[in-house]
Parts: sequence; structure tokens; C-alpha cells
Amino acid sequence: MAVYTDITENDLRNFLSEYDVGELTSYKGIAEGVENSNFLLHTTKDPLILTLYEKRVDAGDLPFFLGLMQHLAQKGLNCPLPLPRHDGKICGELSGRPAALISFLEGMWLRKPEAQHCHAVGVALAQMHLAARDFSITRRNALSVNGWQELWAKAAPRADEVLPGLQQEIGAELDYLVSHWPQDLPQGVIHADLFQDNVFFLSDRLSGLIDFYFACNDLLAYDVSICLNAWCFQPDGAYNFAKGSALLAGYQSVRPLNADEIAALPVLCRGSALRFFLTRLYDWLTTPEGALVVKKDPIEYLRKSRFHRAIEAASEYGLEPAA
Amino acid sequence: MAVYTDITENDLRNFLSEYDVGELTSYKGIAEGVENSNFLLHTTKDPLILTLYEKRVDAGDLPFFLGLMQHLAQKGLNCPLPLPRHDGKICGELSGRPAALISFLEGMWLRKPEAQHCHAVGVALAQMHLAARDFSITRRNALSVNGWQELWAKAAPRADEVLPGLQQEIGAELDYLVSHWPQDLPQGVIHADLFQDNVFFLSDRLSGLIDFYFACNDLLAYDVSICLNAWCFQPDGAYNFAKGSALLAGYQSVRPLNADEIAALPVLCRGSALRFFLTRLYDWLTTPEGALVVKKDPIEYLRKSRFHRAIEAASEYGLEPAA
Repeated sequence: MAVYTDITENDLRNFLSEYDVGELTSYKGIAEGVENSNFLLHTTKDPLILTLYEKRVDAGDLPFFLGLMQHLAQKGLNCPLPLPRHDGKICGELSGRPAALISFLEGMWLRKPEAQHCHAVGVALAQMHLAARDFSITRRNALSVNGWQELWAKAAPRADEVLPGLQQEIGAELDYLVSHWPQDLPQGVIHADLFQDNVFFLSDRLSGLIDFYFACNDLLAYDVSICLNAWCFQPDGAYNFAKGSALLAGYQSVRPLNADEIAALPVLCRGSALRFFLTRLYDWLTTPEGALVVKKDPIEYLRKSRFHRAIEAASEYGLEPAA
Repeated sequence: MAVYTDITENDLRNFLSEYDVGELTSYKGIAEGVENSNFLLHTTKDPLILTLYEKRVDAGDLPFFLGLMQHLAQKGLNCPLPLPRHDGKICGELSGRPAALISFLEGMWLRKPEAQHCHAVGVALAQMHLAARDFSITRRNALSVNGWQELWAKAAPRADEVLPGLQQEIGAELDYLVSHWPQDLPQGVIHADLFQDNVFFLSDRLSGLIDFYFACNDLLAYDVSICLNAWCFQPDGAYNFAKGSALLAGYQSVRPLNADEIAALPVLCRGSALRFFLTRLYDWLTTPEGALVVKKDPIEYLRKSRFHRAIEAASEYGLEPAA
């Protein structure tokens, strides 16, 4: 949950005077997003989201993030739209932080998604990949192989505190990924964090994608592998073949994976499982006890990493042969 | 900030099926209230607040709290109205907790209130006292003199960890209050926690009172003293005479204080300063480091307690002689 910065009514009124929005009638800090402070605003017109970018977000990346949301919304994708100020900018400042006013997307994220929802996620992910093809700004993925190595260098010496043997196991897995990471797959803008809380539904219909603050340029099929990890495992850790199959079929109904992407899917899944394992491990080891953040258990992603190491072909994830 | 319990879409849908509300379009955990989990719901009709009562609230008190809100709203006071279910009850169960659906009150709490707002708070507090006169349920104030003694018995041995000399100073203050606490002042239902975040304004007009979860039966003028402590001190700790004068004048414009209440005001202020000092001190000493709660500094209320000990007459708070 995230409200790191409170705002006073006067500062907010000044900030809103730069926009063409209705009269403010309420603002509440909401428990969404872990990197930024988010407020839900009611006005005499539409509800809005106000985001204050805290220091974990590099202000230099905001033109990419906000521009991407604007680009995708203009292409017809359902995602939050940053509102322009009177001076045309889509980012201002509030309480000493960069701040943006963003359209409110109705919908709810699913705590218990089913296969049909996974299909819709695959469709939306592929639509996003296509819609972003002509987006002009680029952003390197700081959390790809090099980033994993940097994180691991910091976490490795204490890894066995979490689970004995972890230092050796993860070291070997990282070595494997460094030497087998695919280079020549189709690239583009990926969401890179399309977890359940970032996809909204209205009575079983996908109503939008949110939280583009990890978006970057990388392998498109890597984004698919992130979704397989995020959406297609049961709470008990077992892979759900029906969900995986639905997610992949949904994706391929919009953007078919090519043969190289299909062949690379197991190693991509190993990579994304390791990526979330490493950030969670790092946070687990470094987040001070008093912090206002719920630490996520890294072991969930260790289990997923081990699962993917035993996979030999994409068909084991439920990928149907192309029609 | 408070979302202690998450809820799944299916549980929420089942819960809402007991009510006559529109179709749910979103629900977000909000960072308000420290005792309960609160969600802001959007529906195809009106926005709503969903409150899940966590274990710090005694379920046996809910008929008092929710009944009071219903009573006050029916008397025309602007406060959240618990919605009735189809079976007529105003409390159900969700995620294993008692849960109520409550009307959403537009408005914003003021981070920087001015004297005019304090006047409005005084008016609203007196209106609440009058509106609650014929409310039939009663609830003992667990945080009056006896409660302070219980808290102090637990905190005293470690009080000097917070500030050397505290054990002696607070012990003496508590002894004074036990022997000087007024007995024969007008009683009724008090809010008992009317801090800034529990009073909403819409463009300088008070739009409502919220959070009745400390309400109880006690001395009405004690509620006034809580507001003087909560609203009429500057961030630097100085008492603001103009705000105090405005708050008292606002209160008296609706319900004039009698001579005994006026004479007792300094000791009541000492009592309410000590009450908030003691709960903060206790939380300070006992809240585990990893808790998702921001600890409030008890020293702020130690300073207020010391200020009130030097007060000899209510006129020093800005109380004007009755017209």
C-alpha cells in the first residue's frame, strides 16, 4: 500500500488550477502501487487518479511512461490517460515531487482469475505490443540479464540466510541464463509487470491495463513469459495448464509467436521467474523492519524458477500449434 | 493508513447482493482510519465506503456505532449513513469480519485549518451533542480516568525510556486528575475523536463528520476539550488563541456551556491531553517495528498537557463571556 507523501488542500488546489477539471470534492490516498503515492480524486466531473512519483522512479523516465500511456490510449487501448495541463505538459509538481493527473479507469483486479481471464490478458498484452510499435521514445530494461547480475552480486553473500544452498543454486541458474539468453527475438515496448493487480475487469470483460512504470524496450515474448509466471500458477505453486494455454492462445490470436520465440519460451520463463525472485530477495534482505511495505516472499519465485528448469518445450505450457 | 484485510471479487459480490446498490465498477483500499480496513467503492449509482471491522473494534459495540450514525443522519447531521441490507440489518460479514456499507461523504479534511474552520467544528460538535440526546443505546468511555490508570500501569515502568523524568511527571498529573475530575457536568454521547481527519469541508463549508468509532457517553464539555487539543495548537506547539476562541464561540452558538462546564474546562483539557498522550505512549512502546502503522509522537501531547497545567481560567482559551 502506498501513500508516502501527504498533500495539503492548498497545494492541491494550486496544482489542479493548471488543469481543466471540475471542482474537487474529495481526495483519498489509495493502497495501490508500491513505488508511488496515489490518490483517488472525486470532482464535479469525472473521478481522477493523482500520482506523486517518489524517489524510486527516475524523473527522467516520466516522459517515456506518461507518453506511452498517452500513445496507447490514443491507439484505442484501455489504459489511464495522463491529462494535459493548460501549458500542454502532462507532468507537474506537487509537494516537491513530480506529479501527474490521470484518468480513472473503472474496473477491478481479480484476486482469483480463471482461464477465461487469462485469455483476455493474453489478448490485451498482444494488443499493447502492437499499439506500441510506433511509440518513438525508448527505455532500456534495467531489470534484464545485466540488472540481475548486479542484484545478485549484492544479494548472493546473504542468500543462504533465506534458504541454505540458495547461493549455489541461483548462481548456477544465472550462469545458465547469461550464456543462453536469446538475442534475436522480436523486440518492442513491453509492460514488464502485468501482474493481476495491473489488469482491471468489469464483469468478466477486461476493462484496462494500468501501471506502466516498469515498461521498457525488450523481447516481446519475455513479456509473455512474465504473464505466464504472474497469472498461470495456483496458490499452492502448481502450474495451471488450462490458464497457460488460454493466455498463450489469447496472445497468439492477436500476435502469433514465431518459431524462435516459441523455442525460447522455457528460457524466457526461467529468466522472468529469476527476475522477480531476485528483486524480492533483494527487498527481503534490505527492507528495514519498520517500512510501510509488505515484503513479498521470494520463495514463490524460486519454486517457479525450478518448475521452468524442468520444461523442455513450449507445448508443456499449453501452447497450441499454430493453426 | 489502513487496509488490513483484502477481499476477493466473489466475496464482495456476494456481500453486495444483500444490498440495494448499483452495479459495482471499482473498489480501492483507502488510507483512512487506523482501526479498520476501508474501501472506496464506485457503483453505477453512488460511491460507497465499505468498512471491515478489525479486531481492535469490539463487535458488540457495532450496534452503538452504526446505530448512532443512522440516528444522527436521520436527525439531519451530515455523517455517513450505514445502508440497510434486504433483511433490515446494517451490518454483515465479509472476509470473516463484521462489515458495513456506508454512504460516501464528499469533502476533504483540512491539513491546515484556520479559525473559521474551528468555528464550524465547534458548531458541528454542539449540533452532534444535541442530535444524539435521544439516542437510546449507551456505551461507556473505556478511555476515561479508569482507562488512563490502566494504560499508565502498563506504560509507566518504561516511560523514562521515552523521556527521563516522565514516570514521575505523568504519575503526579494522573493523581491530580483522579482527585479533581468533575462528576456533575452535563453528559451525553460524545464523538471523542474529532480530529482534523474526521471533519470534511467543501470549499470552506463543513460538509460532514466521520469516524464515530470512539464515540461513547461522557461529559459533553470533555468533547470540547478534545477539539481544543486537536484543532487549536500550531505545528510548533503554541496554542492559537484565535482558533480556540472561534471553536468555543461556534460551540456556544448552538449549545452554551454552563458555569460548571466553563470552570472545569482547564481540567478537562488536561484530561484529554493526557488521554491522547497515554494511548500514543502505549502504542509507541508496544507497536512492533514491522507494523504497517505510523507511530504518532506522544511528546506532542505531553507539551499540550504541560500547557494546560498553567491555565487558570477558560478565558485563557479564548472563551468569551456569555452574551
